[in-house]
Amino acid sequence: MLQRLARSLPLLGWLKDYNGSVFASDALAAVIVTLMLVPQALAYALLAGLPPEVGLYASMLPLVVYALLGTSATLAVGPVAVASLMTASALGGIATVGTPEYLGAALVLATLSGLVLFAMGLLRLGFLANFLSHPVISGFVTASGLLIAASQLGQMLGVSGGGHNLLEMGHNLWRQWPHTNLATLAIGAGVLLYLYLCRRSLKATLVRLGVPARGADLAAKAAPVSAVIVTTALAFVLDLGSAGVKLVGEVPGGLPSLALPSLDADTWSALVPAAVLISLVGFVESVSVAQTLAAKRRQRIDPNAELIALGLANVGAGVSGGSPVSGGFSRSVVNFEAGAATPLAGAFTALGIALATLTLTDLLAFLPKATLAATIMIAVSTLIDLPAIRRTFAYSRTDGVAMLATLVLTLAHGVESGILAGVGLSIGLYLYRTSRPHCAVIGRMPGSEHFRNVERHQVETDERVLILRVDESLYFANARYLEETVMALVAERPNLKHLVLACQAVNDIDASALESLEAINRRLEDAGLNLHLAEVKGPVMDRLKRTPFCEELTGQVHLSTFEAWQRLTSPALAVVSPPQSVAGYSSTTGGLSGR
Amino acid sequence: MLQRLARSLPLLGWLKDYNGSVFASDALAAVIVTLMLVPQALAYALLAGLPPEVGLYASMLPLVVYALLGTSATLAVGPVAVASLMTASALGGIATVGTPEYLGAALVLATLSGLVLFAMGLLRLGFLANFLSHPVISGFVTASGLLIAASQLGQMLGVSGGGHNLLEMGHNLWRQWPHTNLATLAIGAGVLLYLYLCRRSLKATLVRLGVPARGADLAAKAAPVSAVIVTTALAFVLDLGSAGVKLVGEVPGGLPSLALPSLDADTWSALVPAAVLISLVGFVESVSVAQTLAAKRRQRIDPNAELIALGLANVGAGVSGGSPVSGGFSRSVVNFEAGAATPLAGAFTALGIALATLTLTDLLAFLPKATLAATIMIAVSTLIDLPAIRRTFAYSRTDGVAMLATLVLTLAHGVESGILAGVGLSIGLYLYRTSRPHCAVIGRMPGSEHFRNVERHQVETDERVLILRVDESLYFANARYLEETVMALVAERPNLKHLVLACQAVNDIDASALESLEAINRRLEDAGLNLHLAEVKGPVMDRLKRTPFCEELTGQVHLSTFEAWQRLTSPALAVVSPPQSVAGYSSTTGGLSGR
Repeated sequence: MLQRLARSLPLLGWLKDYNGSVFASDALAAVIVTLMLVPQALAYALLAGLPPEVGLYASMLPLVVYALLGTSATLAVGPVAVASLMTASALGGIATVGTPEYLGAALVLATLSGLVLFAMGLLRLGFLANFLSHPVISGFVTASGLLIAASQLGQMLGVSGGGHNLLEMGHNLWRQWPHTNLATLAIGAGVLLYLYLCRRSLKATLVRLGVPARGADLAAKAAPVSAVIVTTALAFVLDLGSAGVKLVGEVPGGLPSLALPSLDADTWSALVPAAVLISLVGFVESVSVAQTLAAKRRQRIDPNAELIALGLANVGAGVSGGSPVSGGFSRSVVNFEAGAATPLAGAFTALGIALATLTLTDLLAFLPKATLAATIMIAVSTLIDLPAIRRTFAYSRTDGVAMLATLVLTLAHGVESGILAGVGLSIGLYLYRTSRPHCAVIGRMPGSEHFRNVERHQVETDERVLILRVDESLYFANARYLEETVMALVAERPNLKHLVLACQAVNDIDASALESLEAINRRLEDAGLNLHLAEVKGPVMDRLKRTPFCEELTGQVHLSTFEAWQRLTSPALAVVSPPQSVAGYSSTTGGLSGR
Repeated sequence: MLQRLARSLPLLGWLKDYNGSVFASDALAAVIVTLMLVPQALAYALLAGLPPEVGLYASMLPLVVYALLGTSATLAVGPVAVASLMTASALGGIATVGTPEYLGAALVLATLSGLVLFAMGLLRLGFLANFLSHPVISGFVTASGLLIAASQLGQMLGVSGGGHNLLEMGHNLWRQWPHTNLATLAIGAGVLLYLYLCRRSLKATLVRLGVPARGADLAAKAAPVSAVIVTTALAFVLDLGSAGVKLVGEVPGGLPSLALPSLDADTWSALVPAAVLISLVGFVESVSVAQTLAAKRRQRIDPNAELIALGLANVGAGVSGGSPVSGGFSRSVVNFEAGAATPLAGAFTALGIALATLTLTDLLAFLPKATLAATIMIAVSTLIDLPAIRRTFAYSRTDGVAMLATLVLTLAHGVESGILAGVGLSIGLYLYRTSRPHCAVIGRMPGSEHFRNVERHQVETDERVLILRVDESLYFANARYLEETVMALVAERPNLKHLVLACQAVNDIDASALESLEAINRRLEDAGLNLHLAEVKGPVMDRLKRTPFCEELTGQVHLSTFEAWQRLTSPALAVVSPPQSVAGYSSTTGGLSGR
């Protein structure tokens, strides 16, 4: 237990080597991440339908908690785009945007998803994240990016968009675009163009002007800060608020106070499914970012410790007025490239956000919401990867179907049904794929101890002995298929006396498959045949020996297929059959076929 | 399409060989099955909360339909115990027993589950039945048997029991047992004892008296008929109805009329989940019985044709006033042993039931319900197999957990949640099991081309080259585990230059696993290492070649592990390491360890 505690307190490892130069690296990274995080924190709060300060609060205590418990030196925790979209979707079902109930539910959601992650960490249930296959995550993230971009169009036009799927959003925009505020549109479009150009060519331009590559890159990534400053100044000087441009407005100064979230049982139970999904998606994204960055320095992250760290960070968000948090991709890359050496960089970032909150809130009141909307649209454009659908289809049709279905359902029905359908579909398709394993009737390559598919090779067979190779572990999804395959083969062969299952590719036999083998054995016995096994792997055999199956077996267990062949055939009766008709394979007889 | 039609009309196969002796066999079997089916049809209607004639109606048209379309010569279709329990559970949620709505919903349920089966047959979705693993089915059937037996206790005492799980049933019985009708109890207990003795020793006794074994067996199985006759006569003569014994009462004479079931959309949509479950359970049980019996004669059944046949049989039940039907186990065995040669035996049984309905309904009015309850209790006692839990646990803990959970949840929460939880759990546990595949670091057996686990054997290793063997197909459930395993191994070995994945046990690599391999490749590259593959199977390699992965691979694809070893190590640097600490394996050095 103590050892486990030590493992979940990785700071015991890096704190003893902490010194001035490490501090300098961490502090520099913190400054840069803070500059990037302030506009993002405000923007993602807006996206989640929450007051802007909630984003700032979510960027303080959670970062400190993660710094104490996290195993990644560079993962930058805070509000992220996809989780904010999922938060908006979850809260929209139980409260109205702008009400105290809505805010209260957001805190419950953060706490709840924190508790879910924490429990998964304690119970070592990180494998549950495996249910989210890559194609499902990829389709879901692309769809989320599209939904987020669409949701910000309303803010860019200065109208209230809204809706939880693409149809609703399109419908609302269609009704409201005549009310477009031109000043808002000018700011939104201007910032969008500016950020797009910065992203595309600021780095290259700065490098040409003699700025070192790393500095140029970080400057390009901090471009939103300049957009925020300029448009805030414009709004203040030109009094754009009176011109109908929606501004962020009064942001309460000061730090968040700690408070337990609402304990209303209905709210908690209504939010459980959303909390589980947000936790899983956030965890998968965080771990994948953290692993990618850790590998660059040959460091290691511990997924179960990450669950605990992210879990308590979210509980921290919930009790300090923040929305759900997880590791952000671009933010963590900036943190890494700026030289963050230990998780303490995150704690320093929290300090930076706290300073910004204490000093800048009066100015932020004049920040146009359209600026934040443009920031979000540029940020999520990196999430959208439509060519991945074609790539995935080219590699695997079933994976492509899962990805496309997740994408389409997320767009059409919202985030929760999209991801659930994707998970169900990828599991179903996997079971379907393995439910019809490749099986081959094999025969002996003349003169050798090798056995090959009778449909592809000229091999010796014997009408009394059938050897069937199964190229998959046997488990419930394919157990009945095996029964059917065997009985169909037997029904076609009236002279058959022995059936041999060659098991070299069978890594496991579960209880369903064992029952099927027992049924096959009994049925073959009723039909006057013997069932044999060959090449059973050691661990599989160990388990079979614990059951009565081996005694009931009408045939034997042979070490090798060749051994089974030798015992069950008398060579005089063996014939070489020509390859059976398979498209693309010649069925002309070779030199041995007349034997 | 025509070929498909011909395949789904198996009667074209057997009808041309039909002759007098086949007819005689079929007719004899039909007489015996009819004797067995009449009390069962009444009893299972009672169990489903339906009027007794519904069971008789379900034993006419459906049997004729199955005779025309079914591929099993011996499967005896009709109302069965488990489906009747599930029917009661499904209908209890939307109507009150005894109302016209309840009866109407039963006909909708039969039609709907027929359409589900039929659609599954057309779309060749029979594999969906694979989701019901053997342990789940077994746990579910045992729990159903217990629930059915418990539900009949009320009838045996002459009180109204009721309830959809064991707690409700227990509670209702506890409240009502003081109202026990002693005459009813006498009849119920008497019949129960009589049937129990018949089952246990009638066959042996008859054989001792010189009756042929087969005849004795069939006589023992027809014992309920004598119980029905005797108790009906007693009730009539002693006027037990006036003594408070509940009788079957007025059964409408005449044959059912054809009518479309209610078209109320709410009823249909409310019954969809139950219809799917009843279909799947009924299909699995029917096919398993049919396959067992077909194999004894080296015949074959076609599961997709069975779906269509059972589907239309259920639609037939729904439009002729009957409840859902499927293949019954004991009934089919009797049919088989009595010599049924073609599906026509089923049609003759339907004729027998029709004759019984036309002639016996006046007499059946005096049949005590307690007699039917005792019949049911004896019939379902064969379903209950508690030792199977221990057997399954001994073979596989995860399968045992799935079985026990299904059993407990079915008893505690009713049939639908029980079976759904079982299905979810067995899929989840399977994914969990394969999500942590066995992986072994392997080294070269000195002087050979063989590579073995370094923890079990004294093998040559090289600190610059790590060879990892993965004993499972790579797919979404274990893709991240592979990433973590590889990065953990690399993090421990500062001098490593090459990582080789030995893939001889990898039957498939899905899109998630491909992305993980790409991530591993990139991360190893960042850390200055090369990734190699060895022994990749042909079909897996074919698909990998269609992606950019092979070009991006920092190392090479080697045909064999030995080839990789030869290319990547210079023999002078190879060392023989002693086996690493593994419990049970000696770590004392052998003759080669000093080399």
